Amino acid sequence: MTTEPHNNNTDLSLAKQQSNKPLLSLCWDQGKLLMLDQRLLPEKIVFLELTTPEEVWEGIHTMKVRGAPAIGIAAAYGVVLGAYSFQGDNNKHWLEHVLAAADHLATSRPTAVNLFWALDRMKERAAQLAKDQSSRALRNEGLLAEAVAIHREDEEVCRKIGQHALPLFNSGMGVLTHCNAGGLATAKYGTALAPFYLAQEQGISLKIYANETRPVLQGARLTAFELQQAGIDVTLLCDNMAGLVMSKGWIDAVIVGTDRVAANGDVANKIGTYSLAVLAKAHNIPFYVASPLSTIDLDTESGELIPIEERPEHEVTEGFGKRTAPSGIKVFNPSFDVTPHHLITAIITEKGIIKPPFRDNLAALLKP
Amino acid sequence: MTTEPHNNNTDLSLAKQQSNKPLLSLCWDQGKLLMLDQRLLPEKIVFLELTTPEEVWEGIHTMKVRGAPAIGIAAAYGVVLGAYSFQGDNNKHWLEHVLAAADHLATSRPTAVNLFWALDRMKERAAQLAKDQSSRALRNEGLLAEAVAIHREDEEVCRKIGQHALPLFNSGMGVLTHCNAGGLATAKYGTALAPFYLAQEQGISLKIYANETRPVLQGARLTAFELQQAGIDVTLLCDNMAGLVMSKGWIDAVIVGTDRVAANGDVANKIGTYSLAVLAKAHNIPFYVASPLSTIDLDTESGELIPIEERPEHEVTEGFGKRTAPSGIKVFNPSFDVTPHHLITAIITEKGIIKPPFRDNLAALLKP
Repeated sequence: MTTEPHNNNTDLSLAKQQSNKPLLSLCWDQGKLLMLDQRLLPEKIVFLELTTPEEVWEGIHTMKVRGAPAIGIAAAYGVVLGAYSFQGDNNKHWLEHVLAAADHLATSRPTAVNLFWALDRMKERAAQLAKDQSSRALRNEGLLAEAVAIHREDEEVCRKIGQHALPLFNSGMGVLTHCNAGGLATAKYGTALAPFYLAQEQGISLKIYANETRPVLQGARLTAFELQQAGIDVTLLCDNMAGLVMSKGWIDAVIVGTDRVAANGDVANKIGTYSLAVLAKAHNIPFYVASPLSTIDLDTESGELIPIEERPEHEVTEGFGKRTAPSGIKVFNPSFDVTPHHLITAIITEKGIIKPPFRDNLAALLKP
Repeated sequence: MTTEPHNNNTDLSLAKQQSNKPLLSLCWDQGKLLMLDQRLLPEKIVFLELTTPEEVWEGIHTMKVRGAPAIGIAAAYGVVLGAYSFQGDNNKHWLEHVLAAADHLATSRPTAVNLFWALDRMKERAAQLAKDQSSRALRNEGLLAEAVAIHREDEEVCRKIGQHALPLFNSGMGVLTHCNAGGLATAKYGTALAPFYLAQEQGISLKIYANETRPVLQGARLTAFELQQAGIDVTLLCDNMAGLVMSKGWIDAVIVGTDRVAANGDVANKIGTYSLAVLAKAHNIPFYVASPLSTIDLDTESGELIPIEERPEHEVTEGFGKRTAPSGIKVFNPSFDVTPHHLITAIITEKGIIKPPFRDNLAALLKP
């Protein structure tokens, strides 16, 4: 545990008092997971105190926490809460209990590979602990250490993605981003937004354009919010304005996060990303994807094999606090789309910038 | 004046009782203009009773009535209401009063050429009436007849656009549209939506996709609403889903309306149209623009000369009853964009389908 106020701290009051600093999406606080309810942003800053894996499942499922890395971190702490609820002393039963909690958490969102990655890591650690530690307290402590490690490593990964991406952005450039792949989607810094924070630290001034990102408006509620809080120059757009601002010459680069990268470099990300990539190509604007290695899934051959979650109609028909479409209207509400690799200029990871051909270069990067 | 209940009828109760039939955007009712407040749709059907040109100006400016043809019709009736408020008997003063009302109405929205077209027509008629008629009552009656003619002609124009467009659409086709160029934007039938209504009359079943059209959601509130009311198969999309549904092969054609067509075939239309045209091109999907001749402006050489209205930030940040972006955030909110002619497959008018080269073919079409 660290006592740094803006890291994964253990103090609820510190988490709540972070004025003029990036809000953290998740904090572990003495046996509880503090989860920032991102659905209430930017109007209200509310931390939920979660004490059961079921509450964490619900928090992920209803998108109180969102963003692939943050979901993985939340799920890891959810496994810890599952372990805490086991009362017996039998190693085998403890392990069964922990694995069941992990398997349940895996059903909370279907698309984010980080969720499965984090849960697999927690399950492996649990199996190891069940072998090595006869004390339940030590097993639980070991599981918590693993979740904290996942949390810390994500922050470090984001910082490195930002560092690698930074040379792509010169002072004065206009950069368009979609959805929220920011500090709120991760432990800190974010993936797609990390270069903006690092640019600011180095006095490089970028002009950021944030798509509002219908239907759930993560761009308006989260990206615009967290960049504004950090004092970064940000302008909010409706998603359908992207073509116009590109045609005006205001956009020098697009950068987005991702929920899964397939072996061939196809990228699943928030609905609208594919349209944006087609528009960038048509305007000769580089299109970058920021991705931790944990989001790259070499077992998925190509994008068409990535399951695309469809979400409830009411997100589209009554997303703004009142009904904005007629009752009974048919709605198509896919949460993601897939951007084919040929539209992607580069994928930026914590190990560096990956260019085409992605199949070879991603495989080489992930070689053990 | 007609007593047909679903035409430009004079009976408020009939206008309000149109169940299971297309709602009319405007009705003239014994000295009053009944204006459907489209900002309240689809939740409430409210007709405003307007008796002054100032009220008509406000109705246009605040988009209670919208759609280029409907704006033109409303403004024409606004001029009539201006004439009604003149009490003297002097022809010259009557004309000055009417022209002043028309000039003020011209300031209500900057982009829609139909507004200026309709007002110029009313001004010419007023000048003629000031010469020909010494009775104020007859002058006013003549002005009203002109406004009614504009209203009726628009319905006929829309029906003809639909008839010309119809051969482009075969049964089973998927067609995407943006914003609302429907019956609510015109006297009846609409422009872009007219072929859908005529297809339905002829038993041709199309599968329509309606972009919700941020920020004011005319697609969700109006297009989805009026097509659903008419029993036409319609599915609502967020604007950023267009690329995905095109890539799935669901869309065989795109058709939109327009606020102004330049001499070279460039088209100003609701923000998002340009992005849609780029996406259609990238997917080899034909992109059609439905336009009355009155919307074609040969005096505007090309699209970059069309003034693009920017609208208030709150449409983006708190459009629907609650704030969805942080306070103080910078917003870019252009109401229109320009689609260059090279992205347009054909422009469909009441005189037939116009194909490239648009400069020559539009000029030939409009030759007196």
